[in-house]
Amino acid sequence: MANTKKRLKVHFSPDNVDITVPQGENLLKTALAAGVHINAACGGNGVCGTCKVLIKKGEVAGPRSEKISAEEYEQGYRLSCQSQIESDLSVEVPLESRLETAVLSREMRMAEAEAAETIATGWGFNPPLNKCYVELSPPTLKDNVSDLSRLLRSLKRRCNLRNVSVDLDVVKNLSRVQRRRGGQVTVTTLVKAVKTKADKRKPTIIKVEPGNTSRQHYSLAFDIGTTTVCGQLLDLNRGRVVAESMAYNGQISYGADVITRIAYSQRPGGLKKLQQAVVATINQIIDELVSQSRIKVEHIGHMIVAGNTTMTHILLGLDPKYVRLAPYTPVASFIPPARARSLGIRVGRHVHIFTFPCVASYVGGDIVSGVVGIGLHQSQKLTLYMDIGTNGEIVIGNSEWMITAACSAGPAFEGGGIKHGMIAAAGAIQDVNIDPQTLEPEISTIGGEKPKGICGSGLINIIAGLLEAGVIGQNGKFNTDLKSDRIRKGGDGYEYLLCAASETQTGKDIVITEVDIDNLIRAKAAVYAGCQTLVRSVGVSPSALEQVIIAGAFGSHIDIERSITIGLLPDMPRDRFIFVGNGSLTGARLTSFSTDLLDDARKVATMMTNLELSERVDFMNSYVAALFLPHTNAAEFPAVVRKLAKLKGSKLGGRLAL
Amino acid sequence: MANTKKRLKVHFSPDNVDITVPQGENLLKTALAAGVHINAACGGNGVCGTCKVLIKKGEVAGPRSEKISAEEYEQGYRLSCQSQIESDLSVEVPLESRLETAVLSREMRMAEAEAAETIATGWGFNPPLNKCYVELSPPTLKDNVSDLSRLLRSLKRRCNLRNVSVDLDVVKNLSRVQRRRGGQVTVTTLVKAVKTKADKRKPTIIKVEPGNTSRQHYSLAFDIGTTTVCGQLLDLNRGRVVAESMAYNGQISYGADVITRIAYSQRPGGLKKLQQAVVATINQIIDELVSQSRIKVEHIGHMIVAGNTTMTHILLGLDPKYVRLAPYTPVASFIPPARARSLGIRVGRHVHIFTFPCVASYVGGDIVSGVVGIGLHQSQKLTLYMDIGTNGEIVIGNSEWMITAACSAGPAFEGGGIKHGMIAAAGAIQDVNIDPQTLEPEISTIGGEKPKGICGSGLINIIAGLLEAGVIGQNGKFNTDLKSDRIRKGGDGYEYLLCAASETQTGKDIVITEVDIDNLIRAKAAVYAGCQTLVRSVGVSPSALEQVIIAGAFGSHIDIERSITIGLLPDMPRDRFIFVGNGSLTGARLTSFSTDLLDDARKVATMMTNLELSERVDFMNSYVAALFLPHTNAAEFPAVVRKLAKLKGSKLGGRLAL
Repeated sequence: MANTKKRLKVHFSPDNVDITVPQGENLLKTALAAGVHINAACGGNGVCGTCKVLIKKGEVAGPRSEKISAEEYEQGYRLSCQSQIESDLSVEVPLESRLETAVLSREMRMAEAEAAETIATGWGFNPPLNKCYVELSPPTLKDNVSDLSRLLRSLKRRCNLRNVSVDLDVVKNLSRVQRRRGGQVTVTTLVKAVKTKADKRKPTIIKVEPGNTSRQHYSLAFDIGTTTVCGQLLDLNRGRVVAESMAYNGQISYGADVITRIAYSQRPGGLKKLQQAVVATINQIIDELVSQSRIKVEHIGHMIVAGNTTMTHILLGLDPKYVRLAPYTPVASFIPPARARSLGIRVGRHVHIFTFPCVASYVGGDIVSGVVGIGLHQSQKLTLYMDIGTNGEIVIGNSEWMITAACSAGPAFEGGGIKHGMIAAAGAIQDVNIDPQTLEPEISTIGGEKPKGICGSGLINIIAGLLEAGVIGQNGKFNTDLKSDRIRKGGDGYEYLLCAASETQTGKDIVITEVDIDNLIRAKAAVYAGCQTLVRSVGVSPSALEQVIIAGAFGSHIDIERSITIGLLPDMPRDRFIFVGNGSLTGARLTSFSTDLLDDARKVATMMTNLELSERVDFMNSYVAALFLPHTNAAEFPAVVRKLAKLKGSKLGGRLAL
Repeated sequence: MANTKKRLKVHFSPDNVDITVPQGENLLKTALAAGVHINAACGGNGVCGTCKVLIKKGEVAGPRSEKISAEEYEQGYRLSCQSQIESDLSVEVPLESRLETAVLSREMRMAEAEAAETIATGWGFNPPLNKCYVELSPPTLKDNVSDLSRLLRSLKRRCNLRNVSVDLDVVKNLSRVQRRRGGQVTVTTLVKAVKTKADKRKPTIIKVEPGNTSRQHYSLAFDIGTTTVCGQLLDLNRGRVVAESMAYNGQISYGADVITRIAYSQRPGGLKKLQQAVVATINQIIDELVSQSRIKVEHIGHMIVAGNTTMTHILLGLDPKYVRLAPYTPVASFIPPARARSLGIRVGRHVHIFTFPCVASYVGGDIVSGVVGIGLHQSQKLTLYMDIGTNGEIVIGNSEWMITAACSAGPAFEGGGIKHGMIAAAGAIQDVNIDPQTLEPEISTIGGEKPKGICGSGLINIIAGLLEAGVIGQNGKFNTDLKSDRIRKGGDGYEYLLCAASETQTGKDIVITEVDIDNLIRAKAAVYAGCQTLVRSVGVSPSALEQVIIAGAFGSHIDIERSITIGLLPDMPRDRFIFVGNGSLTGARLTSFSTDLLDDARKVATMMTNLELSERVDFMNSYVAALFLPHTNAAEFPAVVRKLAKLKGSKLGGRLAL
């Protein structure tokens, strides 16, 4: 075929995906379009060099990057963001450039399974979005009320819907739509304003379609995390998840944590860029959900989103400036629903987007959603709810009261600020056992692959292992008296060799340094001190906690015993700990099914009392006291102390420096 | 000054207005910009020839029009819509091309004065739009609720505003606005959803401004008529009219009545054009109001509009197709508020536009507004409310019940379909006395100018005069036995010469023909039969009517005695008739001042029962019976019959054919 515009085929390995694009197309963009995840930390500006790919066959054009060595260039390595496709290509995405999604999906399934243990109950299945099919009687001279009045009358008679209002957009097409199938229409209503009294709910007509489409009745639930965005497509007739998908938040290219994102948002056009980035991620997930389920996007009628305060602000285009400046005020805690389309989300014009209310600048809608999702607000048990990530958010309470706080843990739990840290993806070291005699490590990685780095949960296990083996002391410093080649002095001071270069994917040694250990100790101390301060502020003893619920992607991976060993989690009976995975997404889903729970979300946000830890003296004292493994106050970790003493006595021959 | 773009001065007489425009500008556009009203019936397409002007000095370019005779062209006449300005100009707008606005203003003042007689009372001054100045305490670590929560808390404490919701637009700028003047802000709230219980009103924050702007608190009230649009700028602090203005509805170029407008709206792009035309008129009036009052347009916070069903549909972009097709259903009677800006109205983004609810396709929001404005819904008196124009809309009832109907009177009352008919503007013959002996007329015109044509109210007076003088019989036919040169046979059958060519502005004879008289009889018969059918349908006698309220521009001009003489108005004690001028505008104004009345408008629209006259046999019978002067049933017009008998007996020597 002699086309004027040449179309070229690009093959990506190892994903084994083909895509056809016009000549001259950008290679990074093409990879994204093909669903191949390439790490592009700088957002495709040719700066970071992380989007390196190997051109195995064919030609690309573009400037030569400093990020590619002469040798690599010779082999065919190029920066995908700087390359234009000039012929049919065969492209290999090397390990270090890949973003792994397999792990994300696994977390999601875990979340599903484990959430069943602790989940909100006692709510009626009454989605805020409703579809009602009615057959309108034809207008006659004796009954020539307006088209809208006729519709409202039918909704009252046939669907028992009263006090219904209507969007002006709906009115515009009403006369045509109502006549297209002889008065057969399907009416979509939404309870927009969440009220406290069920009998006062006023639905709004947001769409009227010709014919009976009541079987096609879907909505979206999203958790917008700083790092990852998770979405579910829900069938509102059957109360089921039809499809689910996850992707890295496109804002990652503009900074790893909320603080750098807020800083970026203050640049000219910055807020808009960040907003567009997360919307692009949401659209990508919607595309995936729609293609998985073969459901038409126009049958999606609603969207409920949970995110932390900053993510919620940015998504809605609200300036997060004062979120990070003392005294840390969000613009709004309760935000009115927006039209999803007005934010750039590719769904029908009638789709509204609900965001969960926020409690404070660092206790956001994701926590409110999580609390509602796991039913904390219905529980008689005194509960500690923790969502640990870059920020650790903590809630203590029950159905009567709730108190909450956020503690800045830093990025260590997500592998940040750690020499060989990485996110929890394939190849990340997640568990280590150290032989107390030989001091040799036995390592396992996510996906069973050759080691590539250390993820947050792996870090906990490594440090607990080093402590138990006496390689490090309770102060986190290496026991340099030990005779082992693995303990050595490196560029960042003392370090322990986990894997030699020959065994790793990267071809480099993987080590853990004293600086890494120090970073983790600070992170765990912040979380522990936060819990302690909250518990003390309400005058209960930690032992009074009847359950400890751990939410979040990071939470799904940690080992309770070892987390207690290093002093991250309190030393209490192990059966009080429950993992719920993505509690925030659970909450977004359940509120999509239940207007009752949506009402509850508002109540929960209102009843939560936020404690600002950052300037409290008691928090600072707790924090300093927690800068030790497991803690300077041994009485708070009796089981750990007993274990370490036992290890010291029996195996280590006095090496353990208690 | 050596400008690259030449700017030219144009002087318009007799308005005596100057304007400076760039070379090449269209002359009609320039006149509009200068506020000089030129008749452009075809909308500036060079088709109708009505926008003829005389170029007294200077040069214009453009094609020569067939509508300009060789002689006129020589003299300097041009079609303004086809002319580009090529030099400084002196332009005279000849009489026949002018749209007189002086009369419009006069009508408006009359409306003001007369409405005082009958006006809604017993409402609280509580505008739906509110401004509240608050000083927010600065956020601290102990009190770091969100900016919005801080604002809502203050509104509750200082302004006693509860259950307040907020527009997302407001939230977007909140953090900046609240910090600009150290927490001093003025909050504009609007009661969007009209409720029946006052205690359930939920205001919405539509704007937050820095500093104290509570003194600048204005809104707009509009009556959108098929022919004219009237607007008032209201001071909501003082409950006063600050400025008022009126203009011809720009839709006139697309048809004179609602039926032709609806027909036009069904063409491709037609609805959009009509919508833009009326919006342009509204914007023109707003410009005028703002310039009269020197109030900044950004201080206008709200807009209430009353219009008939078709005008309301077109303004909001709703398809009026089924308004004119049996069984005559509007799209919606109660229409949710729209953003004025989204319709193209040049006011602040926060301004919402409320339209009065409609009752039926031909009983619109203007009638509901009028009924509320004159307080019919509060009255114990059995009242007949009439708004007579192209359509005669009639309401009978009191505070307990209301029944309504529309009767298509045709354009005769507005001078349409009458050989020398014209709208009620300067030079229109408005009164005639005919000497019963000589049969010579004594004529008076609007503005005292030389006669130019006959307006609707003049037509009533002429026909009553001809009848009383025995020139025509009760069947509307000329008494051809009379010896008078004024009664003669013309192109349309018999006619009566009102003014000879030498006495008129147009240089042509002004006559009234049998066809004209027949048209008026049909028009008055439709209105009278409508009233009669309504009265009979509720089983009361016409004499039970305690007051007859006549609204509308046409109504302001008619002579009661003569209207009864021809059988337009029922024959009852004259002191029961009250003129209220533009009742619709009055209603729009009063509801701007009172949320109570706005609530009432909804109730009124709901309580009104509409009678479709068009296919009722009793209406047709009444109509046929009324095709006589004053009526075939003499018993219905005893006073008229007595008067005519007396005239016959005493003066006319048996000429009156009773």
